[in-house]
Amino acid sequence: MAHIKVINPNTARAMTETIGRCARAVAAPATVITAVSPAMGPASIESHYDEALAVPGLLAEIAAGERDGVDGYVIACFGDPGLHAARELAAGPVVGIAEAAMHAATLVGSGFSVVTTLSRTVGRAWHLAREYGFGAACRGVHACDIPVLDLDDPASDARKVVAELCATALETDGSDTIVLGCAGMADFCTEVSRDLGVPVIDGVAAATKLVESLVALGLRTSTRGEYAHPLPKRYSGLLRDFTI
Amino acid sequence: MAHIKVINPNTARAMTETIGRCARAVAAPATVITAVSPAMGPASIESHYDEALAVPGLLAEIAAGERDGVDGYVIACFGDPGLHAARELAAGPVVGIAEAAMHAATLVGSGFSVVTTLSRTVGRAWHLAREYGFGAACRGVHACDIPVLDLDDPASDARKVVAELCATALETDGSDTIVLGCAGMADFCTEVSRDLGVPVIDGVAAATKLVESLVALGLRTSTRGEYAHPLPKRYSGLLRDFTI
Amino acid sequence: MAHIKVINPNTARAMTETIGRCARAVAAPATVITAVSPAMGPASIESHYDEALAVPGLLAEIAAGERDGVDGYVIACFGDPGLHAARELAAGPVVGIAEAAMHAATLVGSGFSVVTTLSRTVGRAWHLAREYGFGAACRGVHACDIPVLDLDDPASDARKVVAELCATALETDGSDTIVLGCAGMADFCTEVSRDLGVPVIDGVAAATKLVESLVALGLRTSTRGEYAHPLPKRYSGLLRDFTI
Amino acid sequence: MAHIKVINPNTARAMTETIGRCARAVAAPATVITAVSPAMGPASIESHYDEALAVPGLLAEIAAGERDGVDGYVIACFGDPGLHAARELAAGPVVGIAEAAMHAATLVGSGFSVVTTLSRTVGRAWHLAREYGFGAACRGVHACDIPVLDLDDPASDARKVVAELCATALETDGSDTIVLGCAGMADFCTEVSRDLGVPVIDGVAAATKLVESLVALGLRTSTRGEYAHPLPKRYSGLLRDFTI
Amino acid sequence: MAHIKVINPNTARAMTETIGRCARAVAAPATVITAVSPAMGPASIESHYDEALAVPGLLAEIAAGERDGVDGYVIACFGDPGLHAARELAAGPVVGIAEAAMHAATLVGSGFSVVTTLSRTVGRAWHLAREYGFGAACRGVHACDIPVLDLDDPASDARKVVAELCATALETDGSDTIVLGCAGMADFCTEVSRDLGVPVIDGVAAATKLVESLVALGLRTSTRGEYAHPLPKRYSGLLRDFTI
Amino acid sequence: MAHIKVINPNTARAMTETIGRCARAVAAPATVITAVSPAMGPASIESHYDEALAVPGLLAEIAAGERDGVDGYVIACFGDPGLHAARELAAGPVVGIAEAAMHAATLVGSGFSVVTTLSRTVGRAWHLAREYGFGAACRGVHACDIPVLDLDDPASDARKVVAELCATALETDGSDTIVLGCAGMADFCTEVSRDLGVPVIDGVAAATKLVESLVALGLRTSTRGEYAHPLPKRYSGLLRDFTI
Repeated sequence: MAHIKVINPNTARAMTETIGRCARAVAAPATVITAVSPAMGPASIESHYDEALAVPGLLAEIAAGERDGVDGYVIACFGDPGLHAARELAAGPVVGIAEAAMHAATLVGSGFSVVTTLSRTVGRAWHLAREYGFGAACRGVHACDIPVLDLDDPASDARKVVAELCATALETDGSDTIVLGCAGMADFCTEVSRDLGVPVIDGVAAATKLVESLVALGLRTSTRGEYAHPLPKRYSGLLRDFTI
Repeated sequence: MAHIKVINPNTARAMTETIGRCARAVAAPATVITAVSPAMGPASIESHYDEALAVPGLLAEIAAGERDGVDGYVIACFGDPGLHAARELAAGPVVGIAEAAMHAATLVGSGFSVVTTLSRTVGRAWHLAREYGFGAACRGVHACDIPVLDLDDPASDARKVVAELCATALETDGSDTIVLGCAGMADFCTEVSRDLGVPVIDGVAAATKLVESLVALGLRTSTRGEYAHPLPKRYSGLLRDFTI
Repeated sequence: MAHIKVINPNTARAMTETIGRCARAVAAPATVITAVSPAMGPASIESHYDEALAVPGLLAEIAAGERDGVDGYVIACFGDPGLHAARELAAGPVVGIAEAAMHAATLVGSGFSVVTTLSRTVGRAWHLAREYGFGAACRGVHACDIPVLDLDDPASDARKVVAELCATALETDGSDTIVLGCAGMADFCTEVSRDLGVPVIDGVAAATKLVESLVALGLRTSTRGEYAHPLPKRYSGLLRDFTI
Repeated sequence: MAHIKVINPNTARAMTETIGRCARAVAAPATVITAVSPAMGPASIESHYDEALAVPGLLAEIAAGERDGVDGYVIACFGDPGLHAARELAAGPVVGIAEAAMHAATLVGSGFSVVTTLSRTVGRAWHLAREYGFGAACRGVHACDIPVLDLDDPASDARKVVAELCATALETDGSDTIVLGCAGMADFCTEVSRDLGVPVIDGVAAATKLVESLVALGLRTSTRGEYAHPLPKRYSGLLRDFTI
Repeated sequence: MAHIKVINPNTARAMTETIGRCARAVAAPATVITAVSPAMGPASIESHYDEALAVPGLLAEIAAGERDGVDGYVIACFGDPGLHAARELAAGPVVGIAEAAMHAATLVGSGFSVVTTLSRTVGRAWHLAREYGFGAACRGVHACDIPVLDLDDPASDARKVVAELCATALETDGSDTIVLGCAGMADFCTEVSRDLGVPVIDGVAAATKLVESLVALGLRTSTRGEYAHPLPKRYSGLLRDFTI
Repeated sequence: MAHIKVINPNTARAMTETIGRCARAVAAPATVITAVSPAMGPASIESHYDEALAVPGLLAEIAAGERDGVDGYVIACFGDPGLHAARELAAGPVVGIAEAAMHAATLVGSGFSVVTTLSRTVGRAWHLAREYGFGAACRGVHACDIPVLDLDDPASDARKVVAELCATALETDGSDTIVLGCAGMADFCTEVSRDLGVPVIDGVAAATKLVESLVALGLRTSTRGEYAHPLPKRYSGLLRDFTI
């Protein structure tokens, strides 16, 4: 039995609930999923500033998870904020949803397109694709320009807009697989895939299965070198409680 | 319940049994593992020639698997022979063990070393690392120069030789994770990991969990473009039965 | 005097004849060209599956060539199937037509476009361009979507379609050189080049001259490491005669 | 007259003073340098965890700088923490010291070696080198394994240890230029350069001149796309004051 | 006080004057700028041939500068002709304007477009971007097809044509920063930037500040290895005076 | 019948004679080889400065060759000086010897080592390997530190030193093929290859056969775009005769 903590790094509770539901839908029966939002930070993540400031709350959740004996973690924001720091802190594996979705995409297709929210995040998606080794497999990144917190507002018509953008992306990029570039799109996945007839990958589901797999394989983040546990030192001011 | 067929592309039955055992050891209770060797081809795979000639037998096993309703496939040879062709033929996902091990390695470490059998296969491992996007994550490939079929011969002392080479590789390469470069090393994994204190990844186990995950996620190889089903055409001579 | 064997890896005799004619047209007077098709395999090569299953017949032709004292080989299919295995088997040099065409293109231009047959082969051309080091020199790959065996059918109007696609590719890609992406287009070369006023490269001709050059230079595939002769071992079943 | 704020993202005052002194030593007479530490965060930065948690304090200093009419910023930690977020927040240019040192190194040499503090930061230096485009120019990264806050402790003999490691790096890497990989090494620069007879680059000084140059050129971070000002939204909990 | 020699490698005096004026406009008060054209070579540089033949005159100016105690050099042609040779010859730093503009662009934006003169120079700009490590940061290169010496001819309407092409480039490439690809466009910079609302970078100004910065930092080209002073040897014929 | 002009860009007549002899040794009977040195320039090429100043003489030889109806050119210096400019000037193909040797090496091996003269040229060899797409195929560059003009001086014992360095390079780099990095090593080729049992490639011979092949294929440098003939313009001073 594995206990996986899925952390939505923003503070939008409704989104956390959707994320938890999507994770549970694919988890093995014996897997326990806990989906949480941090106690501090931005309501949604749409810039490097938001992403940077989502990290302290995320790390507090990892630290709490370690005290609770959590086996592995999902970071449920497509920018994979705090991934490297979280790996230092957690004993078990930590996987980001951008990372997971891109890994999965290269296993079922020859090239993928990312469909994301705001144009300003396009660069971040490219950055991650290159960092993870998927600079050639990623054929394009496309923004629908719907803000994160409007994705589940019927007025945004997001599901339709995203589906149309996915169809355009396949044509423009000559790709064969879609990666949805926001945790807030997690529940569009099945429908869009059925419409387009290609694999459409939600990172929340993909990351949940990857963490579950790593736990089953007995694989934990290496503690040799870069991801060794942080050295104890004094933290001060507002962040004094982060002292290890 | 998923049915995963693990194909050892060489004809060495003892090795197929070990591979099957390693796959079953990590599979979910509800997963059925069938481990097979092809009816034709080389006794072991240690060259491009062996690899090329292992593919027809492998593809025959994929075709048989499709008739049997198999949900997904593992190609259990570190050269990932026939991976692209198998993806065209199978409806469900197909994952090679080099691919799987490298994907897993990048999720638990900052850089990996591959420890493989014969020196002549070093180039192939680098080739795959680059093809899959892990040219920067792969920090070195090291050969123990023990032939594949001697790995389980006590006289080769393979487990000890491999463990020592892994230790050297971590130092030389500045890596933090080990990828075992041969399905015949699958059962060295736990012990070597315990000795070295770093993640040691066996591709058979890793690929089994990745296929299981993709099946659970409902992800099948894209049929748009490169991996569409092969076009029907005449096959002649010795290979006439491969006509689709 | 050099004896070069040009192997069309599919079983379409008419295409083999065209290929032989194109090779002879550029070979030195003292060079003997033998153009053959294998005794087994697919009628045309339009998928990874076709490509994989063309390899045994190709390797049988290489083995026969070695017995006949052949000096060097051309693999006359744009996917360069079996190239690495053939290099292990043959004493003399082996060159694929995709490889040859791309090498030649980078010697006479600053960037090339590939014009190929079916869309599903576009990924394979990109893969080879990157493998050979020409990922930056290759500016685009374009498919005319005419099946291989229809190229010489007047009803397909292939020569005209290909010429128009070449013109489009030059504009779209900002390239200055064309690589024809199928051995079946070998005899379009001169005419299309004259029409467009740019170098148009047929891999069959290019590979023939490259093999002839390597033979004249006394260069044979290195037997140190990756391309050493395959180790002797048991082959079984349908492929038992491939035992070395 | 330019006002440049040099932010040491850790809370070690002594180090901030050294950094300020090194910046002032190269700044133009008309440039005002303000060197600060944040009011919150880690005493030194030696892990991804430290780096992530240094960012809120850094961003608070940027926000304060904007209110004070600062013209440009230096982030004086070799991991360049918070660089992208800071660029969104600041009107004027923001330059990290790793970035600055690597840029300068490629202008005066054909390949550089980085000499850094702890082994666990080696991966971060490589990561930045690749991100900035200097993956080929960076020939090696070497750790002296002296903690950041011991660098100015005479007992660590850091200046001598670093100088010797620089000499080794030049030999091992075949490099011709040294980049010092920690703001705490800023005042070793002149002496080590004189000893080794090659350019030795301190990122604090380099970044100060780059920011001064960008200000003189009238260049500010582009607000089109990725680095546009963060969107206003609710921040909660401990970080509520970061609401824009 | 620094003495910087700005060398326009073509022989067009009017262009040299504009270049000198643009350099002086950004230089520090204490910096002396000398702007020169060589005594030999092409009237403008629009091909590899022109570029190659601009180099002897350029090197003669570097040699003269060394005799005059010049502190650093700018090569004011966007192909950066003779950069490596000049670095061997000069004691102080040498920076090319393409190099400088691309470095500056990556410090103020996430991706840049180059707008250049003739289409035939597009390949050269890409070549330099890749050589300097900015192959990913450079998002596109666009030619206005106005010859270099017509840029300041009112009849060419160059300023307007260039501004429009910059706007197109930002859209097409998804870039956020413009690099002007010719020293002859140096004085378009301010106006185009104001029109488009993004950073527009003139390499002459950027290189002047970079050289000034390197001089202030006490950084000179490394003499270890590749950029060591040329070995003395006999030069003959027309070039006999280049003997060192 | 093809007329190939082999240009040794330095002015050392003895070396030109060796180069001519090596080219003729591999040329087809019907090929006419003219080997020349320019009338101006450096006695040997061992720096960027030498290389840059070898180019005018080289281009004068190309221009003369065009008047004489030469069919193709070899640039017989391992830095491939003036290659791009020569391509603009010549109607027929132009191939450099570094380029030719690296192309040939990738056709007969899986990875090559370059053995060159002075350490200061190591960077140039790497630069060319990357420019031509062979950054991954090139496994190492090694300098014997014998000056170019001492290679044929028995006192230098160059043949033995080079052979030993080649053996070391194969071991250190894990390579299987040697590229000789100087035209002055052309006649070491056969002997070193026999000693080491691997392909050893002399660029002069390789380039001669490549040019001969391109001529036989009817391939000339593309005149579309980058390599179009230089535009007519005024050249002044010492170089006035280069006016086109």
